[in-house]
Amino acid sequence: MDDLVAPVATEAPGLIPDALDGAGVVPDGAASGPAPDEGPVRAGLLPMTAQVRTDGRLAVGGVDLVGLADRFGTPLFVYDEDHLRARCREAVAAWGDGVAYATKAFLCRAMAGLAHEEGMWLDVSTGGELHVAVSAGVPSARLVLHGNNKSEDELAHALDSGVGRIVVDSFDEIERLARLARAPTSGRGRQPVMVRVTPGVEAHTHDFVRTGQEDSKFGFGLASGAASDAVAHVRALAGVDLVGIHAHIGSQVFRVESFAEEVEVLSSFFIPLELPELCVGGGLGVPYLAEERAPSIAQWAQTVHDACRRAGIPPDTRITAEPGRSIAATAGVTLYRVGTIKELRGVRTYVAVDGGMSDNPRPVLYGSGYETFLPRDAAAPRPRAARVVGKHCETGDIVVADARLPSDVAVGDVLATPVTGAYGYSMASNYNKVPRPAVVFVSGGEARLVVRRETYDDLIRLDG
Amino acid sequence: MDDLVAPVATEAPGLIPDALDGAGVVPDGAASGPAPDEGPVRAGLLPMTAQVRTDGRLAVGGVDLVGLADRFGTPLFVYDEDHLRARCREAVAAWGDGVAYATKAFLCRAMAGLAHEEGMWLDVSTGGELHVAVSAGVPSARLVLHGNNKSEDELAHALDSGVGRIVVDSFDEIERLARLARAPTSGRGRQPVMVRVTPGVEAHTHDFVRTGQEDSKFGFGLASGAASDAVAHVRALAGVDLVGIHAHIGSQVFRVESFAEEVEVLSSFFIPLELPELCVGGGLGVPYLAEERAPSIAQWAQTVHDACRRAGIPPDTRITAEPGRSIAATAGVTLYRVGTIKELRGVRTYVAVDGGMSDNPRPVLYGSGYETFLPRDAAAPRPRAARVVGKHCETGDIVVADARLPSDVAVGDVLATPVTGAYGYSMASNYNKVPRPAVVFVSGGEARLVVRRETYDDLIRLDG
Repeated sequence: MDDLVAPVATEAPGLIPDALDGAGVVPDGAASGPAPDEGPVRAGLLPMTAQVRTDGRLAVGGVDLVGLADRFGTPLFVYDEDHLRARCREAVAAWGDGVAYATKAFLCRAMAGLAHEEGMWLDVSTGGELHVAVSAGVPSARLVLHGNNKSEDELAHALDSGVGRIVVDSFDEIERLARLARAPTSGRGRQPVMVRVTPGVEAHTHDFVRTGQEDSKFGFGLASGAASDAVAHVRALAGVDLVGIHAHIGSQVFRVESFAEEVEVLSSFFIPLELPELCVGGGLGVPYLAEERAPSIAQWAQTVHDACRRAGIPPDTRITAEPGRSIAATAGVTLYRVGTIKELRGVRTYVAVDGGMSDNPRPVLYGSGYETFLPRDAAAPRPRAARVVGKHCETGDIVVADARLPSDVAVGDVLATPVTGAYGYSMASNYNKVPRPAVVFVSGGEARLVVRRETYDDLIRLDG
Repeated sequence: MDDLVAPVATEAPGLIPDALDGAGVVPDGAASGPAPDEGPVRAGLLPMTAQVRTDGRLAVGGVDLVGLADRFGTPLFVYDEDHLRARCREAVAAWGDGVAYATKAFLCRAMAGLAHEEGMWLDVSTGGELHVAVSAGVPSARLVLHGNNKSEDELAHALDSGVGRIVVDSFDEIERLARLARAPTSGRGRQPVMVRVTPGVEAHTHDFVRTGQEDSKFGFGLASGAASDAVAHVRALAGVDLVGIHAHIGSQVFRVESFAEEVEVLSSFFIPLELPELCVGGGLGVPYLAEERAPSIAQWAQTVHDACRRAGIPPDTRITAEPGRSIAATAGVTLYRVGTIKELRGVRTYVAVDGGMSDNPRPVLYGSGYETFLPRDAAAPRPRAARVVGKHCETGDIVVADARLPSDVAVGDVLATPVTGAYGYSMASNYNKVPRPAVVFVSGGEARLVVRRETYDDLIRLDG
């Protein structure tokens, strides 16, 4: 029961136990309680400050979620600021200076400022991400610019503003850098760059495959010799300093040994170059469902550091990484309002909420699953099977395909989906002209609006 | 060759033959020319006014596409206004008054105004779509409000503004209508409504399946008796007039006989109700690829009208439909700029453009395929196989997985994907903080900007 949300002492709001990270197993249904899928949502899927209050309601950052929905409207993205800060601090402690928050997971000015305050660099992959970060007061020297197809404008802007690193991704980009970095009008110093290589291996959620070929739009292949050529070309560029090598092996990687194998593959290329930096990219997995467990950021870093030592990578090498999902995903919860419940006898129950694929496209994009619960009674068993759907005119507009809900779920209820802090708001659209939700940060009993809700008039402001 | 893009007389810009609608077959590779997949893009996939000029460039609406890219930047959505108007007029001629443009396919104020000017009603499914339509000057009496989960606010707004039809979708909605439509403060007349039923059949692209059950978030099931109950409830509502029945069977339906089967299934329910209107929904297929052919809007309507007659539906019944994709898809072309070309020997060539999944999520959502060509040389053979990808930090960020391109495609080229007029801009996001493209309408040699491009500052205007 210690990994399930449950009210504790009735005298005071109970602290929910933290997630079991690493190799923890899902507790079986205890004889005294419902099976896990019918029990409450596991605490490890909730933000770290989530607490069931004595009245049964869930609070995050000391703020009642139902009250947040009433105050700010729904759908609403709620982020536990303490959780975000804790994950950033964990990343900096584990990896050291240079570890960069992958802003594509979730970016607004408040998030950029928070990650910077906690000591992270920021990984940006477009001029737009760069603009948001800089406008939040992040010094450009703390930015790493990625991108498989950086435009000449983006590169010029990055050079002019003096970004910390440019991760070079193609020969076309090297040509652009040759033009731009040597431009006589530039009064800047030498630009630190890294070269992104494609190691010919790929990590999936639960395995790691050496494909032997490098079928990717990203980076330079090792096996083909393109990576060596790129290093030589970059070293010959005026105005540019090659400082390191970058690679990335995949997303939602639950098996940290995949990163050790990445290091092993990279080491024979990296060591002879005698470069001071190696970035292993991002991709650490995050649990979305009751039965999933993921390693911590600290375990990830330890595994990579051990692998670097074993591979003979010099101990003074700066080893960095780019966590995004593992910083932001579990910090975020989406609140919806239930509007329509359809019980199709012998088929299924549809519970329709006031958002959907416009605020969380992951189910329709990847078939991703989520948990769901009612913040008004967060510790309640969830015996009722239902499909939670959105309000869009599209059959694929599914929020949670196989949801479990308390038996008394009703129209008007606030319904929450946890682990929506990454790739939800960042991929949001205005499909069906649904305004994008507001985003609030909660901490210490206070909520602050960091991104306001779009209005109907916002939907026509670009129109001529 | 008459279905391939080809320059005609060298004295004057050549008209490209229109699409072969209906049962046309793909011409085999003529002995004198390249195989179809290596030949130019088929004319039927281009907007109706597309013309190859004598210099080889493609013009739409009399406007050079390369020039448009230079003037408005890329990515850019270009719509052939004459094509949009022709399709709207075809719909009104084929279906008569009441046929509604499904705005979810593509909506901006200019599009709403155009569809209204050409005599169509507008199908809106959210308060946001309703707002855009009304702000464009469309009388609310010409709007049909859909939605599986209309909020009380949306319903109240629709009632207050006097929308032409509300399509009732759930018992929860009937309860809301009961509260709202009888509200004593309302000074309005009786609201015309339709009831959406789920016929227990489903049309896919090339077939039609009687599922026998009604597993859908939309409407009321026929077999379960829910549809009959809904009709009874709606008839008992004060302030509401039940005027018809609505059903929708699927998307991208290429076999119009599926709609005849829909009518057959609906007729035994519909006829005894003695209602004046029957709407068969939308879903007419549109060809995206060289080998695809679709019926015309006129053929679709004819098939439905014939089926209604055979089924004994009274001849004075108003039969309507809701085309969206078949109005807008082929009218639109997306222009990108090529930024990076990677030739991976023995693997494939990646051609990266300056947009991607943020302006066209259909490939990553549905694995959808597209054609692609270079507007600077639209009639050129396309012997080169490549994968066209976007600039997003995501492996799934594919524009055209298996593209054919002229052999001389180069960095800096404007690259076009046809048939992007539906579910492209309407599903666009700011993923990776990429600003959404501009939209231009072209006609008679003139281009007008109807939706301006987002700026970097637009990306932070909602931030606190």
